[in-house]
Amino acid sequence: MKRLTLLLLLTAYAMISNAQLSYFNPTVRVKDYLEPAIPHPEQDREMKDKMSKLKKKPNILIFLIDDMGYGDIGVYGGGYAIGAPTPNIDKLAHEGLQLTSTYAQPTCTPTRAALMTGRIPARSGLTRPTLTGENPKVNPWASENTTAKILSQNGYITSISGKWHLGENKGSLPNDVGYDEWLGFSAVQSEYAQFVNEWIYPDLINKPDRLAAMRKLVDQSVVTGKRGEDNKMVQPITTIEELSKVDQIFADYSEDFIKRAVKQDKPFYLIHSFSKVHNDNYVSKGYKGKSPAAFPYKDAVIEVDDIVGRIMGVLRDLNIDDNTFVFITSDNGPNEDVWPDGGYTPFRGGKGTTWEGGVRVPGIAYWKGMIKPGRISDGLFDLCDLFNTSLSLAGAVDKIPSTNYIDGVDQASFLLSDTGHTNRNAVFMYSEKQFMAVRWQEYKLHMKVFNTSAPRKNLDQSTIENIGMSPWVYNLYVDPKEQLSTGHRYFEWGIPGVMSLISAHLATYKKYPMKDIGLSKPGAD
Amino acid sequence: MKRLTLLLLLTAYAMISNAQLSYFNPTVRVKDYLEPAIPHPEQDREMKDKMSKLKKKPNILIFLIDDMGYGDIGVYGGGYAIGAPTPNIDKLAHEGLQLTSTYAQPTCTPTRAALMTGRIPARSGLTRPTLTGENPKVNPWASENTTAKILSQNGYITSISGKWHLGENKGSLPNDVGYDEWLGFSAVQSEYAQFVNEWIYPDLINKPDRLAAMRKLVDQSVVTGKRGEDNKMVQPITTIEELSKVDQIFADYSEDFIKRAVKQDKPFYLIHSFSKVHNDNYVSKGYKGKSPAAFPYKDAVIEVDDIVGRIMGVLRDLNIDDNTFVFITSDNGPNEDVWPDGGYTPFRGGKGTTWEGGVRVPGIAYWKGMIKPGRISDGLFDLCDLFNTSLSLAGAVDKIPSTNYIDGVDQASFLLSDTGHTNRNAVFMYSEKQFMAVRWQEYKLHMKVFNTSAPRKNLDQSTIENIGMSPWVYNLYVDPKEQLSTGHRYFEWGIPGVMSLISAHLATYKKYPMKDIGLSKPGAD
Repeated sequence: MKRLTLLLLLTAYAMISNAQLSYFNPTVRVKDYLEPAIPHPEQDREMKDKMSKLKKKPNILIFLIDDMGYGDIGVYGGGYAIGAPTPNIDKLAHEGLQLTSTYAQPTCTPTRAALMTGRIPARSGLTRPTLTGENPKVNPWASENTTAKILSQNGYITSISGKWHLGENKGSLPNDVGYDEWLGFSAVQSEYAQFVNEWIYPDLINKPDRLAAMRKLVDQSVVTGKRGEDNKMVQPITTIEELSKVDQIFADYSEDFIKRAVKQDKPFYLIHSFSKVHNDNYVSKGYKGKSPAAFPYKDAVIEVDDIVGRIMGVLRDLNIDDNTFVFITSDNGPNEDVWPDGGYTPFRGGKGTTWEGGVRVPGIAYWKGMIKPGRISDGLFDLCDLFNTSLSLAGAVDKIPSTNYIDGVDQASFLLSDTGHTNRNAVFMYSEKQFMAVRWQEYKLHMKVFNTSAPRKNLDQSTIENIGMSPWVYNLYVDPKEQLSTGHRYFEWGIPGVMSLISAHLATYKKYPMKDIGLSKPGAD
Repeated sequence: MKRLTLLLLLTAYAMISNAQLSYFNPTVRVKDYLEPAIPHPEQDREMKDKMSKLKKKPNILIFLIDDMGYGDIGVYGGGYAIGAPTPNIDKLAHEGLQLTSTYAQPTCTPTRAALMTGRIPARSGLTRPTLTGENPKVNPWASENTTAKILSQNGYITSISGKWHLGENKGSLPNDVGYDEWLGFSAVQSEYAQFVNEWIYPDLINKPDRLAAMRKLVDQSVVTGKRGEDNKMVQPITTIEELSKVDQIFADYSEDFIKRAVKQDKPFYLIHSFSKVHNDNYVSKGYKGKSPAAFPYKDAVIEVDDIVGRIMGVLRDLNIDDNTFVFITSDNGPNEDVWPDGGYTPFRGGKGTTWEGGVRVPGIAYWKGMIKPGRISDGLFDLCDLFNTSLSLAGAVDKIPSTNYIDGVDQASFLLSDTGHTNRNAVFMYSEKQFMAVRWQEYKLHMKVFNTSAPRKNLDQSTIENIGMSPWVYNLYVDPKEQLSTGHRYFEWGIPGVMSLISAHLATYKKYPMKDIGLSKPGAD
């Protein structure tokens, strides 16, 4: 019934002419299985010209922070103003490109899946985080390709350091899905934290039978492994002290990995995937009370920022900062449920929702000598674009297999051209397999919305509401907080055009359908 | 009755010991009529050392933007992200000191009065904007001193360019209250706009009798005048075209004033007081659609930013940028009622309220060679501090008459020391004569609050609500949007201490009472 309503709506809007359509959708589809992109021949030439001057294939380093809010970072309005300065990340923004319209998925697992596969999570099946002990019936990775897999086949050494949370079983760990090696933990900070703090989890910790049962389900350890090998334990994570150290262990590993890659004279692809600032935050030695705010979350922000500074220092020391593309982002908006152990967004809603607060994340691209310092752009960037963009920078964009539909677009020329514009026309937003909203230029159109009326209970008590006769429309330039939908007054000129984009987007599922991996579904759809 | 409740509450909290008090109130009162400040002898020495190297008395230039939101400026999270880049203002922040905790009064007139007199508006009587044709029974200026007045007596040439709105009658215009000269209009943008746009004000404009009556009450013109002289008209403001030009006329005048001051070899004190971005925004030639957002408000932001850049260029051309202290701010939060012709704040509430959205404003201090580039501080700064600070920089801080209580504190050492801390201990927030809230360190305590449940009707439909048994407390580091008061859990340690600050503050009214200027009062208190 819900689908029928949307279908009727889309049909009604389909009356728009082709001439109008080309304004709303100036993209070109090069291949059937690739998302169409906006052609920018001049900036493509500028990018290729820059790339041609490189003596070696570039390294790719992605810093992926967990649950950090758009507003936490200094250059996005946070930092000193909210009691946790981020000078190292700010410096990369000042000396690189600050993106103000970078979009993640509403939660962790789908964002990570999209970043690595270039696909909307509904296609890969990795639509939501698995919970303690829960396993999908179908291994989604069997039919997926990752940036790491393709780059490993094309001269790169590839790794992920830190949090995984994309499958905890054999067959779905990093060294099973394309990474040459990894060091990290398979789940998420909170699954380890639940065993260590009796003040937060008394009903688990103070009941020996429950504790014993749960310990069997969660592998409480940092592990490491290479492709084709079993993973081995590096350190258990069974106490607060052990848990507090993990981000320093990940940083040590990343440092070592980078040094080894340079020694081998191989280009590297590394995702440095923080455990922090996901709840519950336990900072490592020397960080307790280090932030002006003196809350664990804020101290953790300081630690994350320091680690970014430390790893950037390694690039400089090794003299490879001019040959390394760096991208910093977060996997979703701040988790409002766990406040005060959560972050800050100036926008409406938080993690788990498709309001801007849930999906708009920091996005900073830095590359010494290649990305013009001080650039700021509100051009659209979807984290799934990192799939295509990474492959493009590595000269392997033509190696993408044709078996899967790729939703990412190649943003290399947007990022590298001194005056680059986004190659992406629209960002499509989902809650698991439900299509929720679209961003086009400065407009956001919601087909369904999360009810955020309970101010700090968006994730565990969220409900999805269907919208009446017309989408809710917000102009994010004049209404960044999505307060007052004014589509029928201010955006009558645009609703049909944008609806036609949705129509074309949904049509891709006919040939490239959604994948069911057999996880139980909390919702009906 | 309300006062009684507050009194009882304060008495209850007065049980706190002196030892505790000194932590919450480390200030020293130097003179009975001066607000006590936190002593910082080392940074005072650093500031004095820097000042002693100046060859001439410094110029003072204050850019006062009307109704601009904290979030509108790039470095505060706006700019490109919301469709109106502010590169010139951002540059001053990057090369100067960005303050993240600068406070204005909730509306225009009181902020301007506080900035010029150094006094909380309840003391000067200038507690709210006068409306068309409304005049106070008592001239508040008869018993007030302004920075301009004191500086004019101490070797400076002083002026205000642009909006006044602190009294429209003889005796209360700039050249009556201490300024050597001025050019601008006496009221506020909206009072001129109401005569020119029949699409917004049809019930005035399309009724000839009303129009004729109102025209007699409002002097629709830009005027100029010198001390002791009558003001003369520069340009009428009776059409959209004329109104659209005023900010360029003000900029021309400021440029001319600065050049004349330099020619006369006199230090100057100039408030450049924009007409924009108060509603209704009509941009001057060449600015229509110039912003990416293409809304009048956003185009006006671009024009304001360009004018800042232009006047800064004049300082550079005249080679006086290393001898000119520059401060940029706004007179209150964005006006939500007039959306989309209003600005953006990430905070709760807007103009007219004492929520952060109403009173937290941008504050950037720039002084080439004197203020360390790239500083960011969340140290408290109240715009009334510009009174003392300007006098301090001009070497005239000991010329403050003892007749009036001064609420401002001298922040020269905070701004000029490379690692300066604020000299202000707390910011007291008012709605007219009602004490509403206090900010101390990162905490905000509300005694009364504005009801902001009607999301875009805060100014015209606002009500003030009394709070129950305990103040509402927000930690602005972890809850910058003031969403969940948690005083009794997280700030039990601090409520009595901060309440004692309020007690001490309110006690100053015994010797230095509030002033009644005979304006009608919308509220009961």
